[in-house]
Amino acid sequence: MWSQDKASQGLGISLDAVAPGRATLSMTVADHMTNGHGTCHGGYIFALADSAFAFACNTYDEPTVAAHCSVSFLKPGRRGDRLVAEAVERVREGRSGLYDVRISRDGEVIAEFRGHSRTIGGRFLPTETT
Amino acid sequence: MWSQDKASQGLGISLDAVAPGRATLSMTVADHMTNGHGTCHGGYIFALADSAFAFACNTYDEPTVAAHCSVSFLKPGRRGDRLVAEAVERVREGRSGLYDVRISRDGEVIAEFRGHSRTIGGRFLPTETT
Amino acid sequence: MWSQDKASQGLGISLDAVAPGRATLSMTVADHMTNGHGTCHGGYIFALADSAFAFACNTYDEPTVAAHCSVSFLKPGRRGDRLVAEAVERVREGRSGLYDVRISRDGEVIAEFRGHSRTIGGRFLPTETT
Amino acid sequence: MWSQDKASQGLGISLDAVAPGRATLSMTVADHMTNGHGTCHGGYIFALADSAFAFACNTYDEPTVAAHCSVSFLKPGRRGDRLVAEAVERVREGRSGLYDVRISRDGEVIAEFRGHSRTIGGRFLPTETT
Repeated sequence: MWSQDKASQGLGISLDAVAPGRATLSMTVADHMTNGHGTCHGGYIFALADSAFAFACNTYDEPTVAAHCSVSFLKPGRRGDRLVAEAVERVREGRSGLYDVRISRDGEVIAEFRGHSRTIGGRFLPTETT
Repeated sequence: MWSQDKASQGLGISLDAVAPGRATLSMTVADHMTNGHGTCHGGYIFALADSAFAFACNTYDEPTVAAHCSVSFLKPGRRGDRLVAEAVERVREGRSGLYDVRISRDGEVIAEFRGHSRTIGGRFLPTETT
Repeated sequence: MWSQDKASQGLGISLDAVAPGRATLSMTVADHMTNGHGTCHGGYIFALADSAFAFACNTYDEPTVAAHCSVSFLKPGRRGDRLVAEAVERVREGRSGLYDVRISRDGEVIAEFRGHSRTIGGRFLPTETT
Repeated sequence: MWSQDKASQGLGISLDAVAPGRATLSMTVADHMTNGHGTCHGGYIFALADSAFAFACNTYDEPTVAAHCSVSFLKPGRRGDRLVAEAVERVREGRSGLYDVRISRDGEVIAEFRGHSRTIGGRFLPTETT
């Protein structure tokens, strides 16, 4: 999965640890990730969390995708920050799962993400992706 | 604001329209935006929506940031898709705002985003951004 | 459906209008619905919105249930307020749907609710309900 | 606070434990709480969780209210179930807080709730509550 994931690689994301239902990834905030306020664009923080979520929920046999995600931005990320995203499974039931991802910098939480997954084969996200 | 927003520019996002409380942005799904399932990484769809949200809620005098966002992924984006994000203000009250962003491809909705904003000066996101 | 819905009836909710993918319900904030701050307990505002959502997504042939909901409380409801909840379908795709419910008082928005539905038969919510 | 909270009392909610940033409440699903599908109306599950959240975030000196909440319904509650809601603080920063509430029945998770709080004095929810 990692070898095909150009998006995560392109963001400079590193895969630090994976276990069933868990994953830890990290990323440094690059200059091109800053926004109009001079801080890390929320999209990149989301992308890091979403990648951690994707790895955590794909530690089982079945291909699984994100159906619904939410993120709370608690503190801004800044250029050069090393952000760590730790994804933990909260519930897994049938085709659905719920995962929490904490994004921190030197142990300080800067965002909290929650993701809902669906195993493919359901129709929420079609399987005919190419 | 646009001139300083390296993140949105780096993603190849174009700013198509802005009006008070509204913004329309678009982006083409590039090869490097695809993920392990071969479809557009959710982080890039989120980033497009988040940028539209940011422009819509910054059409007033006060600098405003995202506090909490959620996104529902309804259909996958694919390489080469031209995605359009339309942000519309639902409520604006005191320091808080609520914005909806619809992400579509040729008129077909692929994701729905909802963002909660706070004007800076509040302490949810510190003002010491640089 | 309405005739079996003791919960909505017990809350004094009235069903004002239903159309495919839409429903309007209303409720008066009773004394027993107030909380420790002296305002309407969020649970009752949620319940009104959730009922409107349930009616809107069950206007089709298939039994449908709530999978994930979010609500933003914008202004407090007070004892005696007549609250109106208008549910509108945003997207319906396969077994999934996305509905927005606006809760207002005399035309003033006090809360915004977003609900994700699943038709039963999916395993997110078991079908063995009794 | 509890003595004034008619809403929680009216629902038959009991306050089992409170500690700084934490609260555990429980409630039995009564007949009048069932909905058109014959299961516990989501509004009552939300109300239980929301009360637990309210107690957890009001364990400090300052009056605090809910700004935004989300809930994922994982399994239906049934008539007679004893539901337990455990609220835990995840982050508290300035006027904002983030709390998770797990709702379970005999140790089995049936819903996960996440609430964002604001201390009153902020304008997201007006202070003129009576």
